[in-house]
Amino acid sequence: MKKAVCLLSGGMDSAVTLAIAKKQRYEVHALSFNYMQRHSKEIRQATAIARHFKASHKVVGIDRRLFGGSALTGDSKVPAGKTIDQIKSGGIPPTYVPARNTVFLSMALAYAESIKAKAIFIGANSVDYSGYPDCRPEYFRAFQRLAGLATKAGVEGRKIEIKTPILRLSKAEIVKKALELKVPLQLTWSCYRGRKEACGLCDSCVLRLKGFKEAGVKDPIEYKK
Amino acid sequence: MKKAVCLLSGGMDSAVTLAIAKKQRYEVHALSFNYMQRHSKEIRQATAIARHFKASHKVVGIDRRLFGGSALTGDSKVPAGKTIDQIKSGGIPPTYVPARNTVFLSMALAYAESIKAKAIFIGANSVDYSGYPDCRPEYFRAFQRLAGLATKAGVEGRKIEIKTPILRLSKAEIVKKALELKVPLQLTWSCYRGRKEACGLCDSCVLRLKGFKEAGVKDPIEYKK
Repeated sequence: MKKAVCLLSGGMDSAVTLAIAKKQRYEVHALSFNYMQRHSKEIRQATAIARHFKASHKVVGIDRRLFGGSALTGDSKVPAGKTIDQIKSGGIPPTYVPARNTVFLSMALAYAESIKAKAIFIGANSVDYSGYPDCRPEYFRAFQRLAGLATKAGVEGRKIEIKTPILRLSKAEIVKKALELKVPLQLTWSCYRGRKEACGLCDSCVLRLKGFKEAGVKDPIEYKK
Repeated sequence: MKKAVCLLSGGMDSAVTLAIAKKQRYEVHALSFNYMQRHSKEIRQATAIARHFKASHKVVGIDRRLFGGSALTGDSKVPAGKTIDQIKSGGIPPTYVPARNTVFLSMALAYAESIKAKAIFIGANSVDYSGYPDCRPEYFRAFQRLAGLATKAGVEGRKIEIKTPILRLSKAEIVKKALELKVPLQLTWSCYRGRKEACGLCDSCVLRLKGFKEAGVKDPIEYKK
């Protein structure tokens, strides 16, 4: 069975991406990262999701000192109450974490080469998203090119493919895909705040709720009243 | 004063690179990585070198499970007794660590953006080297391109430059540069084995000794008799 590394944050998008990798008959090796993120609760959910899909799962620590100046590592407040239009036209928000996807993908690349995986799945989205530069199609093309030059596998013609299966889906399409693939949405966690219940007001909650609304489905997780 | 992040392994090449960054009047923030490498002794030497140059220094841990299948993480033997020609024509050796420079540079990129550094210095060499794919000029060009797309700094026109000042120097030229810049060569550690004395036989020792010989200088560190 061909192997794939799948980045699994614990959110809806990465859970759907893992389900797609399974559907494509990969033996999935999930990776989650603990960088002392404000919503580290997502890591517990990632563990539950990996278990649900019977995927191997590793939680890898990243030194928090590398990721300064972000609202997600506690250096400023998480913005709340923005509309979809404000989120999508507001530029790069304070929840941006410096070079995060590059750190995640480089670690996934090392791990993929170590275990002889043929692909890396990442649940990035460039449609209903917060404007992070490292979620854009041109970014992933550049990383793919780098991966070919960086590794023994690349030089020897055993390409490790960067797969972004939900990059161009809307949030509503992601919700529909989740239902189609029987993703346990009740286990997923998207809220940037990481409290007992999802806040419903941060950019991540707003985008998620929009997806459910447009798909005509109720989100199974609890939101703060 | 403009800031630079400098990758500092503790070897001769990165020590010279740090000295070059200082000479270029950067405020240097050195980063070393602990991935349970066989020669983790190099980290102690990196600390001593950073102190010598009065540079800030952080040692960042990387989960060893990401770097499988390498002689440097103990998964096979470190080759010994090769000639220079064998090293330079032998393809990618067992001491290759999967995607190592990509993991190191991505962390340096995150840190550089966090502290608003303008450059990242890395002491890679593509002349007297072991054939690692992630030490080639085309690899660094691809990483530079990625860095521009990956970061808020890049998108907003505040380029973080990847600097490889010794990429095209021979080992003899690196030794001469070290003497010129008063690098404390007695503090540097290159041997892949990491025992009390340098082995003199691994690829790293062979390349280093060639540099000193061609420069007509005695290496100040101790080698096993």
